[in-house]
Amino acid sequence: MPYQRIRKMYKAAKRDYHRRARPGTAPGTLHSFDDTSPTRITGFGYDADSYAEEELKTAEEALAFTKKWKCAWINIDGLADIELLRSLGAAFSVHMLAMEDVINVHQRAKVEEYKENLFIVTRMARFTGKKHERNLDIEQVSLFLGQNYILSFQEREGDVLDPVRERLRHGKGRIRTAGADYLAYAILDTIVDGYFPVLEEYGEVLDDMEEVVFANPTPDTLTQIHDMRRELLLLRRAIWPQREAVSGLTYEYQEFVQEDNRAFFRDCHDHVIQLIDIAESQRERLSGLSDLYISSISYKMNEVMKVLTIIATIFIPLGFITGLYGMNFDPGASPWNMPELSSRYGYPAALTVMVTIAGAFLWYFYRKGWLFENSLAASRDHHEDNQ
Amino acid sequence: MPYQRIRKMYKAAKRDYHRRARPGTAPGTLHSFDDTSPTRITGFGYDADSYAEEELKTAEEALAFTKKWKCAWINIDGLADIELLRSLGAAFSVHMLAMEDVINVHQRAKVEEYKENLFIVTRMARFTGKKHERNLDIEQVSLFLGQNYILSFQEREGDVLDPVRERLRHGKGRIRTAGADYLAYAILDTIVDGYFPVLEEYGEVLDDMEEVVFANPTPDTLTQIHDMRRELLLLRRAIWPQREAVSGLTYEYQEFVQEDNRAFFRDCHDHVIQLIDIAESQRERLSGLSDLYISSISYKMNEVMKVLTIIATIFIPLGFITGLYGMNFDPGASPWNMPELSSRYGYPAALTVMVTIAGAFLWYFYRKGWLFENSLAASRDHHEDNQ
Amino acid sequence: MPYQRIRKMYKAAKRDYHRRARPGTAPGTLHSFDDTSPTRITGFGYDADSYAEEELKTAEEALAFTKKWKCAWINIDGLADIELLRSLGAAFSVHMLAMEDVINVHQRAKVEEYKENLFIVTRMARFTGKKHERNLDIEQVSLFLGQNYILSFQEREGDVLDPVRERLRHGKGRIRTAGADYLAYAILDTIVDGYFPVLEEYGEVLDDMEEVVFANPTPDTLTQIHDMRRELLLLRRAIWPQREAVSGLTYEYQEFVQEDNRAFFRDCHDHVIQLIDIAESQRERLSGLSDLYISSISYKMNEVMKVLTIIATIFIPLGFITGLYGMNFDPGASPWNMPELSSRYGYPAALTVMVTIAGAFLWYFYRKGWLFENSLAASRDHHEDNQ
Amino acid sequence: MPYQRIRKMYKAAKRDYHRRARPGTAPGTLHSFDDTSPTRITGFGYDADSYAEEELKTAEEALAFTKKWKCAWINIDGLADIELLRSLGAAFSVHMLAMEDVINVHQRAKVEEYKENLFIVTRMARFTGKKHERNLDIEQVSLFLGQNYILSFQEREGDVLDPVRERLRHGKGRIRTAGADYLAYAILDTIVDGYFPVLEEYGEVLDDMEEVVFANPTPDTLTQIHDMRRELLLLRRAIWPQREAVSGLTYEYQEFVQEDNRAFFRDCHDHVIQLIDIAESQRERLSGLSDLYISSISYKMNEVMKVLTIIATIFIPLGFITGLYGMNFDPGASPWNMPELSSRYGYPAALTVMVTIAGAFLWYFYRKGWLFENSLAASRDHHEDNQ
Amino acid sequence: MPYQRIRKMYKAAKRDYHRRARPGTAPGTLHSFDDTSPTRITGFGYDADSYAEEELKTAEEALAFTKKWKCAWINIDGLADIELLRSLGAAFSVHMLAMEDVINVHQRAKVEEYKENLFIVTRMARFTGKKHERNLDIEQVSLFLGQNYILSFQEREGDVLDPVRERLRHGKGRIRTAGADYLAYAILDTIVDGYFPVLEEYGEVLDDMEEVVFANPTPDTLTQIHDMRRELLLLRRAIWPQREAVSGLTYEYQEFVQEDNRAFFRDCHDHVIQLIDIAESQRERLSGLSDLYISSISYKMNEVMKVLTIIATIFIPLGFITGLYGMNFDPGASPWNMPELSSRYGYPAALTVMVTIAGAFLWYFYRKGWLFENSLAASRDHHEDNQ
Repeated sequence: MPYQRIRKMYKAAKRDYHRRARPGTAPGTLHSFDDTSPTRITGFGYDADSYAEEELKTAEEALAFTKKWKCAWINIDGLADIELLRSLGAAFSVHMLAMEDVINVHQRAKVEEYKENLFIVTRMARFTGKKHERNLDIEQVSLFLGQNYILSFQEREGDVLDPVRERLRHGKGRIRTAGADYLAYAILDTIVDGYFPVLEEYGEVLDDMEEVVFANPTPDTLTQIHDMRRELLLLRRAIWPQREAVSGLTYEYQEFVQEDNRAFFRDCHDHVIQLIDIAESQRERLSGLSDLYISSISYKMNEVMKVLTIIATIFIPLGFITGLYGMNFDPGASPWNMPELSSRYGYPAALTVMVTIAGAFLWYFYRKGWLFENSLAASRDHHEDNQ
Repeated sequence: MPYQRIRKMYKAAKRDYHRRARPGTAPGTLHSFDDTSPTRITGFGYDADSYAEEELKTAEEALAFTKKWKCAWINIDGLADIELLRSLGAAFSVHMLAMEDVINVHQRAKVEEYKENLFIVTRMARFTGKKHERNLDIEQVSLFLGQNYILSFQEREGDVLDPVRERLRHGKGRIRTAGADYLAYAILDTIVDGYFPVLEEYGEVLDDMEEVVFANPTPDTLTQIHDMRRELLLLRRAIWPQREAVSGLTYEYQEFVQEDNRAFFRDCHDHVIQLIDIAESQRERLSGLSDLYISSISYKMNEVMKVLTIIATIFIPLGFITGLYGMNFDPGASPWNMPELSSRYGYPAALTVMVTIAGAFLWYFYRKGWLFENSLAASRDHHEDNQ
Repeated sequence: MPYQRIRKMYKAAKRDYHRRARPGTAPGTLHSFDDTSPTRITGFGYDADSYAEEELKTAEEALAFTKKWKCAWINIDGLADIELLRSLGAAFSVHMLAMEDVINVHQRAKVEEYKENLFIVTRMARFTGKKHERNLDIEQVSLFLGQNYILSFQEREGDVLDPVRERLRHGKGRIRTAGADYLAYAILDTIVDGYFPVLEEYGEVLDDMEEVVFANPTPDTLTQIHDMRRELLLLRRAIWPQREAVSGLTYEYQEFVQEDNRAFFRDCHDHVIQLIDIAESQRERLSGLSDLYISSISYKMNEVMKVLTIIATIFIPLGFITGLYGMNFDPGASPWNMPELSSRYGYPAALTVMVTIAGAFLWYFYRKGWLFENSLAASRDHHEDNQ
Repeated sequence: MPYQRIRKMYKAAKRDYHRRARPGTAPGTLHSFDDTSPTRITGFGYDADSYAEEELKTAEEALAFTKKWKCAWINIDGLADIELLRSLGAAFSVHMLAMEDVINVHQRAKVEEYKENLFIVTRMARFTGKKHERNLDIEQVSLFLGQNYILSFQEREGDVLDPVRERLRHGKGRIRTAGADYLAYAILDTIVDGYFPVLEEYGEVLDDMEEVVFANPTPDTLTQIHDMRRELLLLRRAIWPQREAVSGLTYEYQEFVQEDNRAFFRDCHDHVIQLIDIAESQRERLSGLSDLYISSISYKMNEVMKVLTIIATIFIPLGFITGLYGMNFDPGASPWNMPELSSRYGYPAALTVMVTIAGAFLWYFYRKGWLFENSLAASRDHHEDNQ
Repeated sequence: MPYQRIRKMYKAAKRDYHRRARPGTAPGTLHSFDDTSPTRITGFGYDADSYAEEELKTAEEALAFTKKWKCAWINIDGLADIELLRSLGAAFSVHMLAMEDVINVHQRAKVEEYKENLFIVTRMARFTGKKHERNLDIEQVSLFLGQNYILSFQEREGDVLDPVRERLRHGKGRIRTAGADYLAYAILDTIVDGYFPVLEEYGEVLDDMEEVVFANPTPDTLTQIHDMRRELLLLRRAIWPQREAVSGLTYEYQEFVQEDNRAFFRDCHDHVIQLIDIAESQRERLSGLSDLYISSISYKMNEVMKVLTIIATIFIPLGFITGLYGMNFDPGASPWNMPELSSRYGYPAALTVMVTIAGAFLWYFYRKGWLFENSLAASRDHHEDNQ
């Protein structure tokens, strides 16, 4: 079962590569890509007492929405409608390079300060699909943090942010009162925490794979180890840059982040560090796993060779003896020609010799510890050591 | 014997993963987890002359206790009673993010300064259970260092801090007079020093494993090497962050740490560096061990193949000769058909040829050094070199 | 098909080594090398409204051209005509060490500030030749950024900069109005972005190679892995230093880079970091690949040995039995001599014994999981575990 | 011979681990350990003109001795007499944590400044025992550098410092005039330089081991590689921290180190860097060595398999033919039953077939280069390449 | 051919180890070593217009020579005459520690500022001996840069500096006018550039070795890989420290290095960085090479085993059948005893069975791709994939 799971992740992850403007394109040029989902704008407006959720159609509506509320979150899913995105960028005074980064969704996590807003790029990881056929989905989320609004762009519909929306709806915690920067924290933190279950899933797959490698290493296992390595490389490339990005939010950008909320970003930074710790541990475990594979194969080959050696070593000499007495030298032609054949105890003697040889070899192999289970041999060795 | 020991550690360590709030939970939300032990509060109050130890029931009692004594240590074992913990947090002005870190016991060691107190997170390692069935137990210990008190939270009952309590009880050393920061040092230092016996135990297991790998490498050994790698990764993740945390205590946080006591934290920092040294050495030894395993298996396979080769190489050609004279060509039909069979010395000649062939191979193998113990062959080679 | 591709790249890359002045040559000495292409100067002059493209013959013409236009790009292809290069250097006040670096085309990417201009060295990567016979071509591009001009030197004709020229011609974007430093950015950025398709191509070759390694590892695969490693080393040596070089352009050299254009260089810096990320991932994947190769070969050898062992282990003992009853002991000479031969059920009994032995071995091998496809054996093991 | 040498070192090194206070012990507590040597105090007093060497009994005598001389070196060998050490500590105003570090002899090299003196910890390496049975002995040396004295503590009698004492006795160089800090330098430098012969010895052992690995790799070699790795880890742990410690002495601690003597400490620092260079090179060589071992074993196995394959491949088919004509089909029962047996040239024809088959295989193996020494095959390949 | 070359280098390099003062020797003590070459002093005096080259006998002559010329280079070859060296040191106010470093020729590259002069240590690499028997020679060159002179010490006669002398003689470039610091640059730069041909030579040897490893890996290749590793370690230890040393010269030591000449040292620094790049690439290639060796050996063993398996698997069962009908059960004694032997088509039937079995195995091996060249099998697999 775990195999299928890994297989799927792998296929999904391969896609991540492309979607990048052609080299030499003027900066700020926005291209539509084939595989992008349709663009949908949702506005979440709130203050301490009230809350509204609205589907918005145009950049103007969005801008008006942010003006109407004390604090607003404009969430854009899907990057297909380049015109709409461009007008949104214009309405919210987004720098053209930042807008380009929103569209070319292969950015590293980073924070850039512009005059009108703070541009935060992060990457979100989650599993999509049903259980046991889940795909790993790594998606770029771009946030613009303004004075009283957040503009967020996601590649596809569906995300890990529903708990944040729930908290907004029910006014749980400080989220409805603490300003747009706190909302940015809540989003970032939820995205970061979303890596934990992913990494734990990988941890469990690693556990499974370890058992398989010990018990029954096949080329499939090898493929899975290799695919896993690739997955973890992708996750690592997604996680590492977040450290630097979030770290900046804990002490810089006074204009956009309130002093009171720094502690929350610090907490989020702690979580990123923990993520990196876990990801590195898993990479080490994985690299141990491929050593393990080779060792395991070598051991099994050793076992195979032992069986062959024991059988061949015992029976080839015996075969020689039977061959010897199968020769057709004519006893009649000379007394030197195989007189054993007609001696009274020739056959029993030959049998005795053969049993003796077989016994000697068996004893030799037993001494070498090749004959029985290794654990027995080990305990015997141990015993001898102690005598 | 050592195998069982490692096995057990491994099983215990696996548990460490979980116990983390769901992604998207509001910060400061305190959850109870299933596997937490019941909460128990113990107060240790002391000044230069007097000392008391008291079981406390509520946060108010605890606060009153710290007010009554010149210096007090409130030790909380078990994190099951979330309500009690929350009221403790409130009574001692603990920041909600810090309180969350206390409950989500998967933090890296760190020090954070808050207005009312200094929040120190560390991880304690010890063996639980009886000898030869010991489990490695890594547990988070969270300390809040206030002006005259220490609030400490532990995951489970039982710790390595009894010597500190003994020193408090008997007023040994400066512990009763040097303030709460000195007590924090005493606790931290004891936790840090508690890693030494653990690492020494691993050192001894490594010694055992080296001997096993040389003498009798089995897949079990491989499993143990792999488990050990995992253990050491866990220990490393517990130890490394302590360096930075303790380092901060040697020069920062003037409000909570007295200048006089800096030297003690410096000493503690030295110990952490030594721990890291030892842990890194053991990691290197372990990584050498898995090379060793492969080399050892390869060598043993070589030996197996040599036996097979010697036996098969000698007897297969001999078998051919016996087969040759076992053919049923009719000597009567033609003088060309196997006249040897009826020659007077046919059989002795065939035997002589066979002995000669066997001797030639034996001599060849002897020359190659495949025949006897390698040490003999080595000394022979050596001898030849010197001639 | 992919093999040929890699092969070709490799051959091309090998050339990169030489072309370096003899040790001890006076600094600033300009040597012509055999393999350099003829020198051709092209001038691109532009301002917001007009644009011209002109072939220039001499250094004086080039200098005059830059004076005539608000902004000019003097592009020199080919480094064969040392005299012409020297006069260009003199005309544009190029430092002799910088000029030497232009000629000795093995420089690391770097930026050096001189009084008259900013000297930027970078390396451009592209594929030349037709599809499936493409060669990787890494070429040094040296730029001198003056107040209103750019002087660029390339090793050979042909580059990745045509999109920049297109943008100049059609006045797309800010390129015609933003000054020489923006042009420098446009050139640098296009060169940097030109690495992405190259690395993606390598990514695809890596995908192919992974499949080959699993399915059918041959020494050719090994050669390709090794060649690939070498390629990636070359690319890495070309990419890494660009990070530091471009980073400098984001905050230094006030005299040559306008504040307004910094953001563009920052964007370019981001791209270099992404390149490094991808290149490092590919290196890791490649290093995993050679482990994979060994594992794959080991596994295949294991399979080969299993076949040999199964066949030999079954038939060698059977062969012994047939040999036994092929012995010519004379039943007439003694009742002890092979009475089986003339017993009524001798032959059937012997056959039965042989079938039993073969069956026993088959059962043994089946239990060991050596007999059928591993996946079957695995599922069986799995089944047993669950019972 | 080299084996015994390495073995011994290894046994000695293993001891280094323990001797550490129990976790939770109050800081500054001094414990006696079982294996410590008896304490002996020797005083070396000198000024430019005079010199004396005296055995001292008590801390008071030692203090008086330092007062009597312009400059004095109090050398303490052996740490058994805890009381004496404590009184020495008190007499010379040694900080209790420093005194504890003197006793718990597992410290990293470091320098700590106290009000009364500078505390320098270093580790000394030397070989003890006779030639070819030498043990590596790594020992902590603790120095207290006061205004006019040095207090030095060593674990055991015997050290590498006799040349320093000789220079004191004979007043060679500036040692008698340059103050206590110069003496500290002389001691440190001699200890540092004492690592060079140790590392050179290891270098020679590495040379020997390389030859053994190529010529005759045995499990013993493997053990030695592994032991060596451990040794070098120990040495490295002893050497690395000295870099930082000595580095501090080149620019800090104005109160204790005179400006004039800085250059000497700089020189000593250079030596430590060289040591690290050499130790790292040896580590790299060693890690190459274990690759070498596996390669060497693989190659030898390949050779073994070739012999088996050549012999078995030639003779098994021949054996089949002999078996064929050893079958007892009754030629009398049918003309189809093995008419060859009674044909006139049956036997010679069979022999011819067999020789042909053997020849064909030999030619095939010759072509593959399996038949003769590889060098021959190589030259043949080479020849073909050039044609 | 390349083998001999590497062998030789290796032997030469081994010598580099020793020549170091005994530990505990007073600093500044100058010892003569056995293998040093006789000391010869040559003076090169020059100003813009004139130039002279003179053999000097004593320190006084040397000092007078430097006074006579505007700029002078005193070059000392060979370190045998300790007295002469000491008097030179005294005449030119060389610090005793610097003089000791000149004699103990195992220093890392470094720059140290003294009051009278700047002490520069570097290491020069070149090949000595005839083509194909070249030895690598790494030699320490120590420079003292004073206001108008350079004092240079070399271990042996012969160096890479002849082009510098030529430039001095013919007054080429700025060398005769730019002061002693420019001469120091010229010397340093020539030494640094002298590493390029050495590394290129190694690059070519690596190319050769790669081909040998693919085609015909022998233990010799292994030895060469290992020796090469050692060589590159030596070169690396020589090159790396030069980076830091030369770097210092680009911004420090105002008293000795003129601002105008900084650019030249920067250029030299660039070259050192390039050297390091190349050396690191070669190290990576080399480490890939030893993986390659193991893979290559594994592959060849696989091939050997395939041949054995194919032959043995086909003929052992056939041998069993022939053995079966070679049994001597008496058909006369019972109708059950091998009636086949006397059946009319017994022999042809047996032959048919054998041919069928052989064919079945052949088909099985063909399917597995073991039978023909791998490339064929690969194309077949490929074909199947596409169907």
